[in-house]
Amino acid sequence: MADKTRDSTLPAEPKEPVEYSEVPEQSAEEYIETLVKRARQASGQLATLSTSVKNRALSAMADALEERSEPILAANEQDLDAFGAAPERKAMADRLRLSPSRISEMADGIREVAKLADPLGETPKMWIRPNGMQVGRVRVPIGVIGIIYESRPNVTADSAALCLKSGNACVLRGGSEAIHSNRAIAAALSEAAEKSGIPSGAIGFITRADREAVPIFLKQDRYVDLIIPRGGESLMRTVAEHSTIPVLKHDAGVCHIYVDDDADAAMADRIALNAKVQRPSTCNAMETLLVHHGIARTWLAGFVEKLSAAKVEVRGCPKTCQLSSLAKPAADDDYGKEFLDLTLAVKVVKNIDEALEHIARYGSHHTEAIVTGNYQKAMRFLREVDASAVLVNASTRLNDGYQFGLGAEIGISTSRIHARGPMGLQELTCSKFVVLGSGQIRE
Amino acid sequence: MADKTRDSTLPAEPKEPVEYSEVPEQSAEEYIETLVKRARQASGQLATLSTSVKNRALSAMADALEERSEPILAANEQDLDAFGAAPERKAMADRLRLSPSRISEMADGIREVAKLADPLGETPKMWIRPNGMQVGRVRVPIGVIGIIYESRPNVTADSAALCLKSGNACVLRGGSEAIHSNRAIAAALSEAAEKSGIPSGAIGFITRADREAVPIFLKQDRYVDLIIPRGGESLMRTVAEHSTIPVLKHDAGVCHIYVDDDADAAMADRIALNAKVQRPSTCNAMETLLVHHGIARTWLAGFVEKLSAAKVEVRGCPKTCQLSSLAKPAADDDYGKEFLDLTLAVKVVKNIDEALEHIARYGSHHTEAIVTGNYQKAMRFLREVDASAVLVNASTRLNDGYQFGLGAEIGISTSRIHARGPMGLQELTCSKFVVLGSGQIRE
Repeated sequence: MADKTRDSTLPAEPKEPVEYSEVPEQSAEEYIETLVKRARQASGQLATLSTSVKNRALSAMADALEERSEPILAANEQDLDAFGAAPERKAMADRLRLSPSRISEMADGIREVAKLADPLGETPKMWIRPNGMQVGRVRVPIGVIGIIYESRPNVTADSAALCLKSGNACVLRGGSEAIHSNRAIAAALSEAAEKSGIPSGAIGFITRADREAVPIFLKQDRYVDLIIPRGGESLMRTVAEHSTIPVLKHDAGVCHIYVDDDADAAMADRIALNAKVQRPSTCNAMETLLVHHGIARTWLAGFVEKLSAAKVEVRGCPKTCQLSSLAKPAADDDYGKEFLDLTLAVKVVKNIDEALEHIARYGSHHTEAIVTGNYQKAMRFLREVDASAVLVNASTRLNDGYQFGLGAEIGISTSRIHARGPMGLQELTCSKFVVLGSGQIRE
Repeated sequence: MADKTRDSTLPAEPKEPVEYSEVPEQSAEEYIETLVKRARQASGQLATLSTSVKNRALSAMADALEERSEPILAANEQDLDAFGAAPERKAMADRLRLSPSRISEMADGIREVAKLADPLGETPKMWIRPNGMQVGRVRVPIGVIGIIYESRPNVTADSAALCLKSGNACVLRGGSEAIHSNRAIAAALSEAAEKSGIPSGAIGFITRADREAVPIFLKQDRYVDLIIPRGGESLMRTVAEHSTIPVLKHDAGVCHIYVDDDADAAMADRIALNAKVQRPSTCNAMETLLVHHGIARTWLAGFVEKLSAAKVEVRGCPKTCQLSSLAKPAADDDYGKEFLDLTLAVKVVKNIDEALEHIARYGSHHTEAIVTGNYQKAMRFLREVDASAVLVNASTRLNDGYQFGLGAEIGISTSRIHARGPMGLQELTCSKFVVLGSGQIRE
């Protein structure tokens, strides 16, 4: 029997095209099914579109965002009004807020994706087997990718652009707090794409706000090949609980920096400060600093002063508090906590073994760094630490698709299969084997 | 909060070590949890074991199978007795049956794995970023792999060997019909491995036959990183329904060969016959033959004769039946059916477009082949067909890890993420980014 998980035999066009607006007469099931079927249908054509068609469409999508910045900003105002101005929600409101310059940044982001090399069709190598057949792997799209995310509306534009460039159809579901902004952005993008020859349905957006939409979406394994959730714990739980589709998680980061006794003190200052304060709300910001006792005596008090000057609250082990009166005592559960703000747990350790044990126990396998001038300890740290990125003498904040040179990223995967760490265009593809034969059979 | 999906902080040793035998006083939950925790614990040490230690262990495991062939064969007799001798189950009983030579084959299979290059530590390239930091990806183990399979006891030996070589702990669950054979094999393997310095728990085997063991196993996402199911539809359904762990499916194959009007007739004979009869019970055997009407007139009747001579039952479209009286009329659902025996559906098509449409509609994205001497049609077939392997002028039976030169395979993945097609040692690994810095920070 045919594999029912991918069905490419769909009616040419649904009778009532979904116009990226609420279609209240449809049930949530019908609505989601229409979207994902259209995406599946589009994906077959997307897979073999030429790079120039895709790039022209990306360029038109970027222009459309700028041309339609007024209605997009108006929609964003609606979201902001609904979100409210409670002081405790200020950080989230900031992430939600669009401006003409933020819209231009989104458009430029899409233009950057257009400039990236097309990952499809690449065949890193072919080899000849003893029977004379030539075998290779060709890079092809995954198919239909579902992306579920929260808050920042720029994810809508980034995701649509990266999926299109890699030949995938996408079905996007943003947070309900950004529903109007996302809908306006998605409408601009998908209309511009269609006008440029991209099959309709290639950029799908779930506009229904009903809570059941997500669980229904997560069961569409016949039409959707991959789910990428980007967000907090409750989203991750929903996805884990309901998805029958493969998932690549973009999960929490509890990142450590271990400052070794062989570290250059000035370099340790620069790296650890950057990792904590440059943008503390991100998953690759440092949450715990581990300091070798040999350097703690001379370095730690001064560094805690620098942290305090940068408004960082330091929660230290007894030794840390002894060395610096600016540190408050850490609670047990401050280790392994993802603060995502200007709070830092600090612990003095007796050697690299204790640092490695601490990281194995409390780390989230996201990003871990060592500062040291000692070759053996650097190599050991690289080898033994199990994380999506392990850095020597560099800030954890550098674990990022742009910084690593992947061109762009759809996020940082904390999964251990398919893609681990920053996911660029390549990670949005899979491969198929091709065989160039001359009559070979299985003996 | 730390990522709870991987917990490496386990007690050193469970109080009552599981001796790969029934421990009836434990609940299924306790039993499974002990196994997967021990596997997780072992995986941390396995990741950094040297290649020579792993190879010595593999060699000892191979020897142990041969040394213990008597108890293994006795256990196999128990399974065969329980399985019974009903004629309709003969094929399955054949797959279940072990013999001294089959045990030697298993042992040799393990020795072959020992000879393969260690995939770990490989860093295909490193690159320098504008800020001077050097970035690369290093191949590392996935962690703990669960493999659920049916019938053939050799899968136990293959899986354990491939997981060990790739630095992964494994937890195996064979079919209940092979429980005694698998238990004897697993005991021989894990004891030999432990004596050779492999951490205990690295090769886990679920001996409990209770039905709830599998659903409980599939929920251990905190300790198990990947599930590979190998088997029929009902196993796939159970896994899809219950697993909270990422899954790489090894699913049905509905494979086609399209014989083009520009095909060499003798080559078409050889390839299509091989794809059907060389081993019809496999997922990469041909299930449907598509024939261009231009060659059908001269070639098809003779080929149907050859098929009949090889005891193949041919179920043809009206045109096929018109050309050959040996063909029976095909039912609608014969297209897209995985016969897994000496039955073949045949359809005459008017051109390559119709062949491509048929494959898109009825294929399972597993293995598809064209026989043609025409360059343009070969290239188009390679480009447009969406399958784990697409072959020109070669038998579908060649879609296989050994045949492709991957060294060994754990199966043929029909998933679209992580690994598609034959999975060798490389596909049992993931990567981590490493950064060699000199003080870089995020600007």
